[in-house]
Amino acid sequence: MIRPVNANPLMRVARIVLTVAVAFIPLSLFAQEAPDPVAVLRQETNWLWTMIASFLVFFMQAGFALVEAGFTRSKNTVNILMKNLMDACLGLFGFYLIGFTLMFGLPMLEGFGVGQIKWISQYLYADGKPDAGAFTFFFFQSVFCATAATIVSGAMAERTKFPSYLVYSFLVSALIYPVFGSLAWGNLFLTDNVSFLANLGFIDFAGSTVVHSIGGWIALAGTIVLGPRLGRYLEDGTIQPIFGHNLTVSTLGVFILWIGWFGFNPGSTLVVDGGNFAIIAMTTQFAAAAGAIGAMLTSWLIFKRPDATMILNGVLAGLVAITAGCANLNLEGATLLGFVAGVVVVIAVVFFDAIRVDDPVGAVSVHGVCGALGTFAVGLLADPSHGSGAAGLFYGGGFKLLGVQALGVGLAFLWAFGTGLLLFFLLKITIGLRVTMEEEIEGLDLLEHGNEAYPEQI
Amino acid sequence: MIRPVNANPLMRVARIVLTVAVAFIPLSLFAQEAPDPVAVLRQETNWLWTMIASFLVFFMQAGFALVEAGFTRSKNTVNILMKNLMDACLGLFGFYLIGFTLMFGLPMLEGFGVGQIKWISQYLYADGKPDAGAFTFFFFQSVFCATAATIVSGAMAERTKFPSYLVYSFLVSALIYPVFGSLAWGNLFLTDNVSFLANLGFIDFAGSTVVHSIGGWIALAGTIVLGPRLGRYLEDGTIQPIFGHNLTVSTLGVFILWIGWFGFNPGSTLVVDGGNFAIIAMTTQFAAAAGAIGAMLTSWLIFKRPDATMILNGVLAGLVAITAGCANLNLEGATLLGFVAGVVVVIAVVFFDAIRVDDPVGAVSVHGVCGALGTFAVGLLADPSHGSGAAGLFYGGGFKLLGVQALGVGLAFLWAFGTGLLLFFLLKITIGLRVTMEEEIEGLDLLEHGNEAYPEQI
Amino acid sequence: MIRPVNANPLMRVARIVLTVAVAFIPLSLFAQEAPDPVAVLRQETNWLWTMIASFLVFFMQAGFALVEAGFTRSKNTVNILMKNLMDACLGLFGFYLIGFTLMFGLPMLEGFGVGQIKWISQYLYADGKPDAGAFTFFFFQSVFCATAATIVSGAMAERTKFPSYLVYSFLVSALIYPVFGSLAWGNLFLTDNVSFLANLGFIDFAGSTVVHSIGGWIALAGTIVLGPRLGRYLEDGTIQPIFGHNLTVSTLGVFILWIGWFGFNPGSTLVVDGGNFAIIAMTTQFAAAAGAIGAMLTSWLIFKRPDATMILNGVLAGLVAITAGCANLNLEGATLLGFVAGVVVVIAVVFFDAIRVDDPVGAVSVHGVCGALGTFAVGLLADPSHGSGAAGLFYGGGFKLLGVQALGVGLAFLWAFGTGLLLFFLLKITIGLRVTMEEEIEGLDLLEHGNEAYPEQI
Repeated sequence: MIRPVNANPLMRVARIVLTVAVAFIPLSLFAQEAPDPVAVLRQETNWLWTMIASFLVFFMQAGFALVEAGFTRSKNTVNILMKNLMDACLGLFGFYLIGFTLMFGLPMLEGFGVGQIKWISQYLYADGKPDAGAFTFFFFQSVFCATAATIVSGAMAERTKFPSYLVYSFLVSALIYPVFGSLAWGNLFLTDNVSFLANLGFIDFAGSTVVHSIGGWIALAGTIVLGPRLGRYLEDGTIQPIFGHNLTVSTLGVFILWIGWFGFNPGSTLVVDGGNFAIIAMTTQFAAAAGAIGAMLTSWLIFKRPDATMILNGVLAGLVAITAGCANLNLEGATLLGFVAGVVVVIAVVFFDAIRVDDPVGAVSVHGVCGALGTFAVGLLADPSHGSGAAGLFYGGGFKLLGVQALGVGLAFLWAFGTGLLLFFLLKITIGLRVTMEEEIEGLDLLEHGNEAYPEQI
Repeated sequence: MIRPVNANPLMRVARIVLTVAVAFIPLSLFAQEAPDPVAVLRQETNWLWTMIASFLVFFMQAGFALVEAGFTRSKNTVNILMKNLMDACLGLFGFYLIGFTLMFGLPMLEGFGVGQIKWISQYLYADGKPDAGAFTFFFFQSVFCATAATIVSGAMAERTKFPSYLVYSFLVSALIYPVFGSLAWGNLFLTDNVSFLANLGFIDFAGSTVVHSIGGWIALAGTIVLGPRLGRYLEDGTIQPIFGHNLTVSTLGVFILWIGWFGFNPGSTLVVDGGNFAIIAMTTQFAAAAGAIGAMLTSWLIFKRPDATMILNGVLAGLVAITAGCANLNLEGATLLGFVAGVVVVIAVVFFDAIRVDDPVGAVSVHGVCGALGTFAVGLLADPSHGSGAAGLFYGGGFKLLGVQALGVGLAFLWAFGTGLLLFFLLKITIGLRVTMEEEIEGLDLLEHGNEAYPEQI
Repeated sequence: MIRPVNANPLMRVARIVLTVAVAFIPLSLFAQEAPDPVAVLRQETNWLWTMIASFLVFFMQAGFALVEAGFTRSKNTVNILMKNLMDACLGLFGFYLIGFTLMFGLPMLEGFGVGQIKWISQYLYADGKPDAGAFTFFFFQSVFCATAATIVSGAMAERTKFPSYLVYSFLVSALIYPVFGSLAWGNLFLTDNVSFLANLGFIDFAGSTVVHSIGGWIALAGTIVLGPRLGRYLEDGTIQPIFGHNLTVSTLGVFILWIGWFGFNPGSTLVVDGGNFAIIAMTTQFAAAAGAIGAMLTSWLIFKRPDATMILNGVLAGLVAITAGCANLNLEGATLLGFVAGVVVVIAVVFFDAIRVDDPVGAVSVHGVCGALGTFAVGLLADPSHGSGAAGLFYGGGFKLLGVQALGVGLAFLWAFGTGLLLFFLLKITIGLRVTMEEEIEGLDLLEHGNEAYPEQI
């Protein structure tokens, strides 16, 4: 830390003369100037922040696993836990082998001319050495992809065949997620050298649409193709509630997701420059808190009681909704949006139940609906003093941004719901998507895995 | 990272000439000099550290929720989980709307003249732009406030009405916590332009008193106003133990709190300067470990067995106690203090039970008593070679610091216990504080929320 | 952040003159030059990263506690949780009082001459002030030591006396772990001023051998000295499976360990320089995911079902295996190694069961066997373009590295298994190692601690 001292004054003078002389040597004699030490440290700090954020995002896998396990029955607990764990594993390789290149390495220029493809292996190595910046970016993107994939498991819980789910995990990470991701964040279909939606001005800072809605709409497709759980909707029209087996576990899951979101949203800055991560963390926090309050009040109003499952989904609704605009909304906007998302998620859960879409954990309502809501809301609530400076309708920005946001929301629905339907239909007619009635009654844990989550409980 | 090379020597000379010429242009022509890039990066690194620490502190909400859920009965689990979750949400808005301004924005000068008030919105924005430093500081303070609020739920568990608890959450975050916090850390009642207690030399680095004792003494008031749980203290004088339903969950909660404390104490540096966070993390770790050992040995001595609930509370006792002096004690001091806190917490739990104060999770003993103990101990054990250089009695510092610490401890008790009594009494005579006997017997989950934590268990 | 402006052009000129003049003052007049501000900030950033990594590693204690609790019966849950918690506490003091000095402070030169001993207290303080760098390093090393110690509790679960386990915890942290650690990373037995194994070229970047195998082989010794649990191996030769009571808890534990490993491996860089932590995180992630897939497929092949306990151990197997070579393997190497570890761990679990070694959680297979496998594999798979540039056999490096890796693996087994046998034998003939048959049948929780983990369940 302490540089050595030149004891001799003569040496000091010599050094000054030398320094001046060296300054006049033509720089072209050297291959390159020494890198600026501050810039190097800033670079490394950016990578460090992005990696720490990635660890938080990866922790969300545990959060999803717990939320889904707690919200479903104990006879299917091992199955849902393993689906959550394995989709992170298979999805990683799907994204590595195909997805990442599709999302960031396949530039198609105007008129669909194909630019130079950059495969993941070319991307990760520079001059034969691993490139830390590229590894950082890939790691961050890979945990985002895993999040999108894992959203689906909850909606399809308690009746989906394990092997079919594994195939799904790989394909969604390899194909479905990256293609839409590329439209917003990557470089498939470039316009003016920018991704198609970004070029139009589409704002989805951390992925309300790119990650959450995509996951939510695939989940909607999956639950439609699967059909409802046995005994859920009776022939006489009554809706039979099926209670999750452990709300302690679900609550812990929600807390872990909440913490993980501080990697998800603030981490999407990818840099520490200007401390923008702090402002984003704050809007995220306000939306989550407002979401809980909104859902609590709505459930109190409708059901005459502050239902815990609704409060938990309210937190997630607020978090999903703010994800698109976390860098562009101010605290009032974030609060309003979170609150509305909390209200909407309760109504959406009731709605999907009424139309016989059996989503055991409310994933479609939380991720699909509130993801769309949050993305759309950027067109209304974007405050030009925050983030990129875009202005929503309420801040004098007119209807243009609103239209672009709606376009992105619509395209995401079409792509994810469409490909989801196709994928699950193909799985259904090939290896089969749903377990047998016997397995569903007995529980997937015993018949698919030979495990019981709680063997001591009768 | 690499700056481009000037290939042409002539251009190099030109650049030097230009540079020298520019250096002689009067600086007053420019609005300001460029900021020092190292200082900027240091600033951003400080914010990053403070935010990561904040995330850890917020994770403590999950820790509290689990400790309290595990230490109470399964029929009240959903209720205690939702209280923990909702107090973070309502408290956030209480602190944002009123608390923060009260704590940091209301300078009252000597003689109680009121200085210029700075509202939170003025604080968070500079020149119409969000100020990342201000957002960082507010985020950190808001999760601290949430911690103080959530301590109370455990002591009042299994019998407090949910709506009353929500009102409490808002008011403690808006009023009770900030006023005392301001005495120690803020700028209500300034003396010599410094907060009243800080001016006297009071040391509470991360809040043994400001956060934990305040929470603990409000909890004491709450449990007194509420009265004990049904069946806890029988008419014939016997004390009926009521066992918590899940020690796995409580243990996980303690581990999460322990991890969260590495945000709480080392994060209170707010900066990375000098690496002080590492020294503080180490004293924190030693106190926690010694607390576990102290409580284990004490319970072995008194009850003839190493009771798990006591060991768990011993960890927390050590952590609470070191919080005030984490920057001022050395490792021996931290170990001694942690060990004593572990002994004291066991005795305190037995004591409060003997005087019929029914605190289901031991929150008063852990946070109230050990918070006071730790704050007082700074007056004895502060090592001048650590932190601010203050010397405790055992390090030749005399009695002055000890007296100031005792004053802070006493004021905190008077303020928190007094306002707590008032608040809970007002709630009791207005909307009511305690659930009906029927609800308490049946469980708060079913009758207040319509949920069961574990519906499959009979 | 913004430096003040010199409004007066004359002052500007004066400042330039003064600056030039000052530059010619002999530097020897000053005690030392000011430290380079970039170097200072880099130092602090390195400490910050190492501390955050340490927090993640410490979180692994919770992960181990949950994995072990979930994999064993509910009547022994409190006991296994408290063993995990207390070994972190007692181990800390064992490592502080003896272990750290043994590992890093006792330089023995060639021919076993003893160099100057540096006690921990001398190490932590410089010029009477706490040295943040030393505190950082000690903290990181102490949580590593705790990890090694806690591995053993799982293998010895459900039958080991609590007091004997406490003695073990202290001694393994004070003596067994540090001596081998010193051979690889410290400075007991120096050759050419480098630790014995490092001087030979041994690569164990984050401790597949130093931490995990050491823990695994001590565990093997412990379970042999203890003997199997009652009713596990029947007289007629049948092996009676004993199911763990809560796979939700075990799965959460595995996720927490996985997250913690991002402190363990990338944190072992100790610096942010070059962003090496990102590359290491990625190899770690690939090995973990491949381990899960390998174990899943193997269990599907052997048992005809994707067994959840095997998948969970597959994740850990991949993580343990990559720990040695996380900085030296490329992504293909990491994937291959992780996959093989996933296969091997299933076979190892079956093998140890077949030879009547009763390891309730598979700790010997995961940490002992896969730690050895991973360390050995560096000799095959080290890619010279990564990390230190060492080349394994498959990358043209010849057999030398392979031999050194094998030597390290062998020495670790001899040391840990040997001293483990001795330690547990001594405990057995003195204070006793195993609980009474009565206690084992009734459960350790009630008779050792007077607690029940789940008192409401009959």
